[in-house]
Amino acid sequence: MTANTREKTSTSGKTPVTLLGLGAMGTALARTWLAADHPLTVWNRTPGRAARLVGEGAKPAGSAAEAVAASTLVVVCLLDDASVGEALAEADLAGKDLVNLTTTTPAQARARAEWARERGARYLDGGIMAVPPMIGVPEAGGYVFYSGSTELFEEHGETLAVPAGTRYVGEDAGHAALHDVALLSAMYGMFAGVHHAFALISKEESIDPVTFAPLLAEWLSAMAGGVHLTADQLRSGDYTKGVVSHLAMQVAGTPTFLATAEQQGVSAELLRPYFDLMARRLAEAGGEEDLTGVVDLLLR
Amino acid sequence: MTANTREKTSTSGKTPVTLLGLGAMGTALARTWLAADHPLTVWNRTPGRAARLVGEGAKPAGSAAEAVAASTLVVVCLLDDASVGEALAEADLAGKDLVNLTTTTPAQARARAEWARERGARYLDGGIMAVPPMIGVPEAGGYVFYSGSTELFEEHGETLAVPAGTRYVGEDAGHAALHDVALLSAMYGMFAGVHHAFALISKEESIDPVTFAPLLAEWLSAMAGGVHLTADQLRSGDYTKGVVSHLAMQVAGTPTFLATAEQQGVSAELLRPYFDLMARRLAEAGGEEDLTGVVDLLLR
Repeated sequence: MTANTREKTSTSGKTPVTLLGLGAMGTALARTWLAADHPLTVWNRTPGRAARLVGEGAKPAGSAAEAVAASTLVVVCLLDDASVGEALAEADLAGKDLVNLTTTTPAQARARAEWARERGARYLDGGIMAVPPMIGVPEAGGYVFYSGSTELFEEHGETLAVPAGTRYVGEDAGHAALHDVALLSAMYGMFAGVHHAFALISKEESIDPVTFAPLLAEWLSAMAGGVHLTADQLRSGDYTKGVVSHLAMQVAGTPTFLATAEQQGVSAELLRPYFDLMARRLAEAGGEEDLTGVVDLLLR
Repeated sequence: MTANTREKTSTSGKTPVTLLGLGAMGTALARTWLAADHPLTVWNRTPGRAARLVGEGAKPAGSAAEAVAASTLVVVCLLDDASVGEALAEADLAGKDLVNLTTTTPAQARARAEWARERGARYLDGGIMAVPPMIGVPEAGGYVFYSGSTELFEEHGETLAVPAGTRYVGEDAGHAALHDVALLSAMYGMFAGVHHAFALISKEESIDPVTFAPLLAEWLSAMAGGVHLTADQLRSGDYTKGVVSHLAMQVAGTPTFLATAEQQGVSAELLRPYFDLMARRLAEAGGEEDLTGVVDLLLR
């Protein structure tokens, strides 16, 4: 309690924060708390990283355990789950509010939550939907998924909202990571499609990629709205619900996409796996469905 | 010239249109021209399809050749390129303005343009970026890419804009189809990512796909804006330009995505080909680039 009392009398009146990990993301987070007058204690495995932040007002700690001792709210943003275990091995976590922003799998997040609980800490896991330049820039639209201790989130929500918007997705400590991975996985799928599209036009001298880009961005944004129908179909289990271009028609169109790739000298390796699943679903479930049946084929 | 004179004295004063092909898309197109008081002559290989449109004011033609004879502006929306050749085999195309909205490859469009030119017709190829329910509904945002004869597009632009917005992408008759295929290919990549994402959450009872969908749509729309940077990088040839998350960092993250898929019982077959190309580019070009080098790996 002494530590807590000392914290509450800090000059700024803002909740003190301890931050472990000063990579690009950690450094970006740190600056937002410093700018908002939160007392900030920092630690990094490689000590040099802290120097500039100390010049901006951060207090350096000689060890991770010392950094943890300095504040009730301890935010961790390290390389991976193993680094978290290593960094916190000697720290006394009793009574701490541990917020883990390290990128992990849902299973790692759940195990880390249990590990923290056993050491007497409340645990909140976070998945950062932003790159460092978006941190502290609300209009950039970045945010952090949080899941785990509701109490921790409610108590520190305001402090956690300083670097980026917050979205709490439930008590299951693994759900922030799952949302994070799911959205980024979808993004990589989109990037694969985007790169295929740019490859298709790349040999056409009269098509400027910079002129093509807004058409592509606008189209993908419009088509992204299709996920609402997909979600409705998944919830109802009826994949023919509201279908506009049914599976048989879409499968019939795939040879044109593959032939165009061939003509433009582009490998279809990024498209073919999806087209193969479309064809498999057509064979198994008939042509009246939407594309949503592909989801079932991915589940083992 | 007699036919043209007769057309220009049509009661509505609107350009007469002949439409070949009354599938879902052709029927949707037809209705918009009828609603806008364009004299419309229709033909379909299977005759029954025309009946309802005739009730709405369309003139049925006994053959494709007869339909073509009825108007200078002839719009074709058939199953595939072979159907176009078949349907028009007996038609006199001299002096006609042929607009082909049939889905084809760029090479088929170019060959069809040459074929039309030899028969004395001007030729415009179109790629429809809409599904039938979006036709005649401007706020739905659908549009048609056109390429080929500039004169034809300029003369009939207003009539062609009745069913959906128009975007002219150049004299090369293949470029409308290429834009169409490129955008749809990118969309299928995005759908692949979306289906992977839905599969990831599908076994979590406390995550409702309908609640998850807006997060996904918003994220994908935001990330679609990344295509502008990709285009800049492609044009400059410098794939390190403006990079935020460099390739080495992104490749380092892929095991988390694959492990999460494994934990959730989801096949990674839709993500792995892209991750493999990312890793190959990293090995060949180093880690400082953006993901854009994947485009080069797709080109043979």
